[in-house]
Amino acid sequence: MGGDKAPDVVIEGTALAVSRNPSIVPTLVGDEPVLRALLGRHPSLKDVDILHTPDQVAAEEVPSVALRTGKNSSMNLAISLVKEGKADAIVSAGNSGALLIMALMALRTMEGIDRPALAAYMPTIHGLCCMLDLGANIDCSAEHLVQFAIMGDAFCRVTTGVSTPSLGLLNVGEEEQKGNATIRQAATVLSRPDVELNYIGFVEGNDITSGEVDVVVSDGFSGNIALKTTEGTAQFITTLLRKSFKSSAMARLAYLLARPSLKGLRKKLDPQLYNGAVLLGLNGIVVKSHGGANARGVANAIEVATRMIENDFMDDLKQSVERSMLALDASSAQ
Amino acid sequence: MGGDKAPDVVIEGTALAVSRNPSIVPTLVGDEPVLRALLGRHPSLKDVDILHTPDQVAAEEVPSVALRTGKNSSMNLAISLVKEGKADAIVSAGNSGALLIMALMALRTMEGIDRPALAAYMPTIHGLCCMLDLGANIDCSAEHLVQFAIMGDAFCRVTTGVSTPSLGLLNVGEEEQKGNATIRQAATVLSRPDVELNYIGFVEGNDITSGEVDVVVSDGFSGNIALKTTEGTAQFITTLLRKSFKSSAMARLAYLLARPSLKGLRKKLDPQLYNGAVLLGLNGIVVKSHGGANARGVANAIEVATRMIENDFMDDLKQSVERSMLALDASSAQ
Repeated sequence: MGGDKAPDVVIEGTALAVSRNPSIVPTLVGDEPVLRALLGRHPSLKDVDILHTPDQVAAEEVPSVALRTGKNSSMNLAISLVKEGKADAIVSAGNSGALLIMALMALRTMEGIDRPALAAYMPTIHGLCCMLDLGANIDCSAEHLVQFAIMGDAFCRVTTGVSTPSLGLLNVGEEEQKGNATIRQAATVLSRPDVELNYIGFVEGNDITSGEVDVVVSDGFSGNIALKTTEGTAQFITTLLRKSFKSSAMARLAYLLARPSLKGLRKKLDPQLYNGAVLLGLNGIVVKSHGGANARGVANAIEVATRMIENDFMDDLKQSVERSMLALDASSAQ
Repeated sequence: MGGDKAPDVVIEGTALAVSRNPSIVPTLVGDEPVLRALLGRHPSLKDVDILHTPDQVAAEEVPSVALRTGKNSSMNLAISLVKEGKADAIVSAGNSGALLIMALMALRTMEGIDRPALAAYMPTIHGLCCMLDLGANIDCSAEHLVQFAIMGDAFCRVTTGVSTPSLGLLNVGEEEQKGNATIRQAATVLSRPDVELNYIGFVEGNDITSGEVDVVVSDGFSGNIALKTTEGTAQFITTLLRKSFKSSAMARLAYLLARPSLKGLRKKLDPQLYNGAVLLGLNGIVVKSHGGANARGVANAIEVATRMIENDFMDDLKQSVERSMLALDASSAQ
C-alpha cells in the first residue's frame, strides 16, 4: 500500500517480477478489496496470497507515531510475516523512516551488528558500486563502519557474484592521515590481515562513480549527501542536455540521429534499474523501493530481495560476521 | 611556482587577467630567472614586479613540514606580502594543505571567526551557488557552521552582487528534526530574527545543483564529499556522453550537428570557470587555484580575488561578523 502510486504500481511491479522469475511467491499485504480489484489485469497473480488489513502507514507519518499506532498497518504485518518465517523478505515502497524503525523493532539486529545500514547500488563507469550507509545512521563509530563494511561485502558478493569485492571508506582524501579519528580507526581495523575483507583504503567523492571500488562504506550522513548529490548532479546535467537538444531545429535533428546511441547513457542513468535499497543487519531481508518507482522499479526491488534469498544472504552474512568477530576478539585478547 | 604546469600556466593566466582588467597589479613570487625567461611572451607583464626566491613548497609536501621548512618558499613569501599590506590578496595554485596552514599561521583568523573555511562556486540550473566549507575543517561545531554562514553570505554578496543571498544548511532531510544535534543547533541560531541572514532551512545533496539556495553551508567533511561527488558525477556522465557520440557514424554526425547547441552545456560544466576557491575568515584574501587549472582557470581565480578587493570584502565581512556577534551576545546576555 506504500508509494506514490500505490497499490497499482506495486501490483504491476510484482506481476512483472513474477513473470520474469516464476519461482517468486508473493504475498500482498493490504486492503484486500482494493487489491483484488486490481488483480484482474495480471493473470500471473491470479492465485496470489493476500493478507488483508485496512490500515496503512501514511507517507508523511512521523516514524515514532507510525510505530506506536501502526501495529495493524500493512507495513507492520508484512514485517511480521518475515519475523514469523512465513516470508523470506519484505519489499516496501512506503514511508522509509517507518519501515526502518518498524523493521528494527520487529526483526532486531543480528548478533554482532549494532545498527542496520541502508545499502543500494549506484552506476559507475565500469558497472555498479554498492554504497552504505545511505542515511539510517547519522552518527557512526569506527565499530559501526567496520560492521557496515562486513555487510556491504556480503551484500555485494551475494547479489553480484563478485567473489572478493573491493571496499573503500569514503573520506576527504586518500592519504592515511586524512579525515577524523573515527574513520582512521575504522581504516586501521579494516586493514588488518586477519580481517578477511578486500579493503583497499580511503576513497573520495569522485571515486564513487569512477568505479574505484565495488563497495563504498560511509556514515549515514555523508553517504546520504553523496547519494543525493549524485542524483542531483545527474538530473542537472540531463536537464541541460535535454534543453540543448531542443534549442534549435538542427539540435532537434541531431537528437533524432543520436537517439539510438544515447540509449546506453539513458539506461546507465535509469533510476528504476537501481531501485531497491536494502536494510542490512537485521534478522530478515528488508528491501525499500523508492516511493516514486514505476512498475519496472518495483520489479527490480523485488529482484534484489530474490537474489538475496536465492543466494542465502542471511547465512552468508551470519558466517562473515562470526568470522570477523572471532578475528577481532582474538586480537583484542592478545 | 605552484600547480601542475607551473610557472608557465600561472604566468599565462596572470597575463590574461591583467589584459582583462588592467587595474590588476600583480607581483610574481618565485624563481626570478625562471619567471623572467617566460615573461617575454607576455607584453602585459613587461613591468611586473618579481619577488625572488629559489625555494618552493613541493606539491606532495606534508603541510606541517612545509610550514616548518618553507619559511622562504614562494608560497610563504607571497602570504607575507599580504600580511605586510604590500599585496591585497594572494592567489596560489600550489599545495592546498600547505597554503591553508601557512596562511592561517601568518594571517590568523579575524576577530569573531574561529576557523577559516574553504568556499567556491558551483554551477546550478539557475546560475551559481557558493558552497563552504569544502574541506578545511573536518569536525565542526554549531558555532563554526554559523560563522561559515556569515562568511558565505558576505562572500556571495560581494562577488555576485546578490543583495540578500539565500542560505541553506546541508543535511540529510529538510524536516526540523533531521541530522545531528550540531546541525540542528546551528539551524536554531541561523533562524533567529535578530541574525541578519536570509537562512531558509536545511537543504539536501540534490539541492546544490538545483539552485535551491545561493549559499550551501556544511562541515568540511560532507562539503568536500559533496563537491567531489558532483565533480565525479559530472565527469561520469560527460564520459558516457562522449562515448555515445563516438559509437557509430550516425552518432558522430549527430554530434557535429549538436555541437553548437551543446556549447552552453560545455560552458556550464567547464571547471576552469569555477576555478578559485577562497579561504575565508583570515586577515587577508587567500585564493586557491586548482593545481590542474589552465591559464583561463588561473585568470578566473585572480578575478575572484580582484572582485573581493574591489568590493571591500574584508571590511564587509568584518562588519557582518561584528553585527552578528552583537546580536548573539545580546541574546546570550538576556
